[in-house]
Amino acid sequence: MPDAYARLLGHLQPIQRLNGARALLGWDQEVMMPPAGARSRADTCAALAEVVHARLTDPELGSLLADLLPADGLAPAARANVREARRAHERAVRLPVTLVRDLAEAASLAQPEWARARDDDDWDRFAPHLARVLDLKRQEAAALGIGDEPYDSLLDEFEPGARTADLLPIFRRLRVALTALLDRLGPALAAPVEPLVGDFPVGRQDELNRRVLSTVGYDFDAGRLDVSTHPFTESMGPGDVRITTRYSEDDVLPGLFSTLHEAGHALYEQGLPAEHRDTPAGQAVSLGIHESQSRLWENHVGRCPAFCHWLAPVLRQTFPERLGRLAPDELVRAVNRVRSTPIRIEADEVTYNLHIVLRLEIERALLSGDLEVAGVPAVWRSLAREYLGLEIWDERTGPLQDIHWSMGSLGYFPTYTLGNLYAAMFWNAARSALPDLDRDLAAGRTAGLLGWLRAQIHGRGSVLAAADLCRAVTGRSLDAGDFIAYLEVKYGELMGH
Amino acid sequence: MPDAYARLLGHLQPIQRLNGARALLGWDQEVMMPPAGARSRADTCAALAEVVHARLTDPELGSLLADLLPADGLAPAARANVREARRAHERAVRLPVTLVRDLAEAASLAQPEWARARDDDDWDRFAPHLARVLDLKRQEAAALGIGDEPYDSLLDEFEPGARTADLLPIFRRLRVALTALLDRLGPALAAPVEPLVGDFPVGRQDELNRRVLSTVGYDFDAGRLDVSTHPFTESMGPGDVRITTRYSEDDVLPGLFSTLHEAGHALYEQGLPAEHRDTPAGQAVSLGIHESQSRLWENHVGRCPAFCHWLAPVLRQTFPERLGRLAPDELVRAVNRVRSTPIRIEADEVTYNLHIVLRLEIERALLSGDLEVAGVPAVWRSLAREYLGLEIWDERTGPLQDIHWSMGSLGYFPTYTLGNLYAAMFWNAARSALPDLDRDLAAGRTAGLLGWLRAQIHGRGSVLAAADLCRAVTGRSLDAGDFIAYLEVKYGELMGH
Repeated sequence: MPDAYARLLGHLQPIQRLNGARALLGWDQEVMMPPAGARSRADTCAALAEVVHARLTDPELGSLLADLLPADGLAPAARANVREARRAHERAVRLPVTLVRDLAEAASLAQPEWARARDDDDWDRFAPHLARVLDLKRQEAAALGIGDEPYDSLLDEFEPGARTADLLPIFRRLRVALTALLDRLGPALAAPVEPLVGDFPVGRQDELNRRVLSTVGYDFDAGRLDVSTHPFTESMGPGDVRITTRYSEDDVLPGLFSTLHEAGHALYEQGLPAEHRDTPAGQAVSLGIHESQSRLWENHVGRCPAFCHWLAPVLRQTFPERLGRLAPDELVRAVNRVRSTPIRIEADEVTYNLHIVLRLEIERALLSGDLEVAGVPAVWRSLAREYLGLEIWDERTGPLQDIHWSMGSLGYFPTYTLGNLYAAMFWNAARSALPDLDRDLAAGRTAGLLGWLRAQIHGRGSVLAAADLCRAVTGRSLDAGDFIAYLEVKYGELMGH
Repeated sequence: MPDAYARLLGHLQPIQRLNGARALLGWDQEVMMPPAGARSRADTCAALAEVVHARLTDPELGSLLADLLPADGLAPAARANVREARRAHERAVRLPVTLVRDLAEAASLAQPEWARARDDDDWDRFAPHLARVLDLKRQEAAALGIGDEPYDSLLDEFEPGARTADLLPIFRRLRVALTALLDRLGPALAAPVEPLVGDFPVGRQDELNRRVLSTVGYDFDAGRLDVSTHPFTESMGPGDVRITTRYSEDDVLPGLFSTLHEAGHALYEQGLPAEHRDTPAGQAVSLGIHESQSRLWENHVGRCPAFCHWLAPVLRQTFPERLGRLAPDELVRAVNRVRSTPIRIEADEVTYNLHIVLRLEIERALLSGDLEVAGVPAVWRSLAREYLGLEIWDERTGPLQDIHWSMGSLGYFPTYTLGNLYAAMFWNAARSALPDLDRDLAAGRTAGLLGWLRAQIHGRGSVLAAADLCRAVTGRSLDAGDFIAYLEVKYGELMGH
């Protein structure tokens, strides 16, 4: 048995290392690649996807996994490796190599077209690329045949074991609760906070972000901060975890909070167990857990009064002309404005999940064939009106705002909501474990929180599956209750109740 | 036969595409990667080297190549593909996969250590990494068994078919001729040119380089300019050819001429036949030819009076405070100073090849076992005294100055000299074909020259082997005569004879 496991590791390590090259190809494409490089990049991505697929479908890997079925005697990390290897192998053998190659190529080609379409507000430029990606994702869902509906196969890629039928009641409950909260709040917290609207030079915003990143424990020796069309985090391994952000000249908050969001992802990746870096056990366990880390730092930390107490003087120092008198409570109001806005990543905590509901509905309809690409803008406008009470006037702030579809990442969006729910549960557990948390955050001391997250979540990699991790950390299963209660209490306090 | 050739292409294309990923891993490591990423990067490079090695040694590829032996009926590009595929296959089958993997790993690990050792002038930091690389390169040479001495196996990697025994008489002739020329010139052209020594902000140097790159025809839509410890050019395909440079705050010329050197490499790569981009026929044919392009733009163009006539006003505009009165003839003197200096890439055209002779001698001794790593600094000092009349006081300006050994590129240096010789021959051919060349260069018009290079050299990729390409372009075989005559005439004119 140990011998079979050692041979299994011999299969898994090169796959993980080759995935490091794929991660770099993806990062570079978004951040560094010149426009004319798109064709070669797509070919290279496709060739590497094919190599990894061949490794994953290797019959020898399959028979090793069959031998390892009664996984008694293996340590927890080894059991996780068997579990994840089996999952990856079983997914891969269902997918024809041509589909794998075509998907990698189509996604690589679609990304720069999406970025240009977004810049030019030109849906027609992006539509044929999305149609191509969608066609391939439908084939992928059919080939995988996971769960009860096509969407399950895609969801399962990002959140192993998650099923649409289990998510729908959660999303329904959220929609009811959030819409009710939004109604109760009305315009009370919607007003802009004067000094935070204006002219913020990008160079100084970059300085600010670097200072905040260092404060929350992001290790620049093991990472970088760059700019891209859509902010993201990419890991080439725990020693090389890169963040991107984007800036608005006239508002300092979107760039700052998107950086804090990505910091949450990056802290998770930098904290994964380095001793397992070449195997599945050393990787992030699910995107829901990943988003719990980004949303925890962005919202529970970034938008709480204690952290604003530390952040306000930093903002005063960085922008003395404009923010020289910024008071912490002004900052708290500014970062907790509540009102429907078109851009998801700039949405407040109440409306954010309504953006996800909208996307989930559109993605399911695209997958099932009820909706075609040409119909997306109209449906988007209609759902934005219904869920968010918003009139959308262009595609740039509508279906062109997110990179995910161009990358073939249909089925990803629900993990943001799962992340919000996990984050609220983890936050409650952290507060119980760390009685001085507020005092620490008010002084910009985040080491205690990060240490707790490292011990409870990051350092566990994929040793526990997401649902088991949630129970290990919080003693309970995933539920929307903590999140809804968190919002009720928070906005109650902000309303002065 | 066409069927066997079609199947051959099916083998070659993925290899070329995977090499695009390796190129990116290398570029990123030098330019973008954070320090803590070194370990994962080395693992990824090794894993990918192993994948490519497996493809190159695939027995099916071997038997296809055997079938294609009588390559009648194939077009020239197809014949080149068979030729290059056979060469790559035969090299690969002689190399154990463990050696291929170890070399990729050792080179990847050694590069950041070299960069830090160079910064800190710390030979002892680099020495164990070089010893590891050297040990593996000796194994590689022994396994390949090409030519008459170990060095031949390494030389052949960069300049297919070149043999040490053929190079030595050329290098001897050069050493005699160049030493004699250096003696004749004495200190006549050695003096610094006053306004060109001083304070040149890096931002403005960057602007200058971008302007010069655009002028010579470098396509920024298909490339980038960045900064690295050692300037280099890396191609991920003809649509993505990236240049790096480095700057001295107190001298504008090293950064400018190193950029012009890399521009020559990049123009070659951007001009390779895109229709063959996924096969060997679409790649650069040898490093000697590659260096002919970099040295042609750096020296024959960059240091000629006509181009200086265009460049002087550009320098005046870029640095009006310091260079506002720079005259073209002052610039000609400044870029054609002749005197021994320790840094190869800043050397004048006369002493440059003496730097190569020194390296060739050390590399051969390392390979044969006559010299060990610990002895390199002392031998370097002694040869620098003998060949260049220089006292070297640190390793930073001695054996730590070049990146090549850290990358495992032993055997590369002679191609710089081959490049100088090819460049002089190509330059003579270009002057014959382009009667208005001087007038064009004086006006910053380089399209005629670039068009000629594209038609004669770049666009031919590897269709003709290097020696055949030289004959096709110049009507003659490689010889040092043109180069020596070029220097004699040039410095005769500069001395006013």
